[in-house]
Amino acid sequence: MSAVSPIGIISMFYVRPFQAEHLVLLPAMKAAGCDFVELLVPEPGELDLAGARAAIGRAGLGCVLAARVNPARDVSSADPAAHAAGVAYLKSCVDSARALGATIVGGPIYGAPMVFAGRAPAPIGDAEREAKVARVVAGLKEAGAYAERHGIVLAVEPLNRFETDLCNTARQGLALIDRVGSPAVKLMLDTFHMCMEEDDLAGAIRQAGQAMVHFQANENHRGFIGTGTVDWKAVCRALVDVGYAGPITLEPFRRNDDRLGVPLAQWRAPARDESGDLARSVRLLRATLDFAGAAS
Amino acid sequence: MSAVSPIGIISMFYVRPFQAEHLVLLPAMKAAGCDFVELLVPEPGELDLAGARAAIGRAGLGCVLAARVNPARDVSSADPAAHAAGVAYLKSCVDSARALGATIVGGPIYGAPMVFAGRAPAPIGDAEREAKVARVVAGLKEAGAYAERHGIVLAVEPLNRFETDLCNTARQGLALIDRVGSPAVKLMLDTFHMCMEEDDLAGAIRQAGQAMVHFQANENHRGFIGTGTVDWKAVCRALVDVGYAGPITLEPFRRNDDRLGVPLAQWRAPARDESGDLARSVRLLRATLDFAGAAS
Repeated sequence: MSAVSPIGIISMFYVRPFQAEHLVLLPAMKAAGCDFVELLVPEPGELDLAGARAAIGRAGLGCVLAARVNPARDVSSADPAAHAAGVAYLKSCVDSARALGATIVGGPIYGAPMVFAGRAPAPIGDAEREAKVARVVAGLKEAGAYAERHGIVLAVEPLNRFETDLCNTARQGLALIDRVGSPAVKLMLDTFHMCMEEDDLAGAIRQAGQAMVHFQANENHRGFIGTGTVDWKAVCRALVDVGYAGPITLEPFRRNDDRLGVPLAQWRAPARDESGDLARSVRLLRATLDFAGAAS
Repeated sequence: MSAVSPIGIISMFYVRPFQAEHLVLLPAMKAAGCDFVELLVPEPGELDLAGARAAIGRAGLGCVLAARVNPARDVSSADPAAHAAGVAYLKSCVDSARALGATIVGGPIYGAPMVFAGRAPAPIGDAEREAKVARVVAGLKEAGAYAERHGIVLAVEPLNRFETDLCNTARQGLALIDRVGSPAVKLMLDTFHMCMEEDDLAGAIRQAGQAMVHFQANENHRGFIGTGTVDWKAVCRALVDVGYAGPITLEPFRRNDDRLGVPLAQWRAPARDESGDLARSVRLLRATLDFAGAAS
């Protein structure tokens, strides 16, 4: 079968927070060959959702959402207030998706943020490990029930070992959604994190199979597709093999600044017009997907 | 030319801290095919250095050292006490190397630890960036002069973006040792970090060339060589191309535990006898190096 995935770009590629004055960027995304925009779920007051939805529609784009967790809203938390805030936040993400016309909200919705929350890895006993996982499962069951009622799907995104200690691999993500057991809680994968955690990217995609509803295509170093070590032919063949037709988002965050002492893990505003690089990345991914589809 | 690199194993593979009672492990390292042990520089009181040196010799092994920095001993620090403690620590590493019969002390000797120190990435202004780099350069000049007097080489190891925000790539490592300008301050590379930061592993090795005095061979996920995504043939060909004959250390930390909620970035004791896996890793690397040498 031929791959028919829409390809999109994360709003953070341009700016953050993404606000009303940035809606003018939407036609540039379309011009670069994108089919949709992936927005970070707007924080309250950040963006008028009705206005954004209209602008996205006018640009001929679709919309996918990315949830943001932090220690104060974290369904893995042993603090009942933080756990409850985590569930409430995921429900609010569902509301935002409805308002924006999106059907997928992805991200590390299980919580337990590490490096970006200033938390170091630490040993964990087996009882606390199981209690933590049980809190996550309970929180995602509740958020999943809410999402299901509203026709939205939440997508669990495994992150690398430095960003979370809850869920790092496709296998762990599958184990988590299996325990949640909701048709509205599925899996997403991001090749940046997979490059650190998986034995084999194509193998992990095949393992995820039909459970996968969203995909993020990033180089090992988060630069533009084609500038790093990822074997895109193998990745695209695996996506075609499992019949993946969901959205594929590009998130090229790496900026052209390799000086000593510059934090690579910190988002930086673009230093130059990168629309040509984005268009090339979209074309490369689409062509690779097309070839993979034609070969299958 | 044929590659003649000795291959070794990090002591952390077995246990940490590595103490007198663990010297019995040295013959097992030799039996697995290793030529040397890489020890974390022992903290004061952790290990009798003369006794360890004798045991390493009896086992027929060599020794390489790995330095450990933290916020209290960090040559990048703006706190004069922490900066001075960073320099003093590197000098003490030189003393430990002499006592143990090692000639190389590698690691993130420029400091600025992140995730393992509970520090989140943060933006940095240009003036502060340059001041920070200047502090590192001054500290490494002083430590390098001390190392040079004692015939020891300090090896700057670029780490991934989550472990430090000072030096992430071979290019940055080369820029740093160039600014230090000491024959006793050179570069080392670790494929685990390279997998996250480099456009091309072989290209980075060729860029490092003669500046490289130490190398760590790890899979993308830190598991045993051959179980991940690294193209060892390409890596070994590049090592042979640049005439690399220095030590190559294996650091397989990944343990057989993929359960939800287990921190992958946290060291764990082995759960089973992994000596067969280690021996296979050493054989695979040696055979790949031999083939690369024969082909060149």
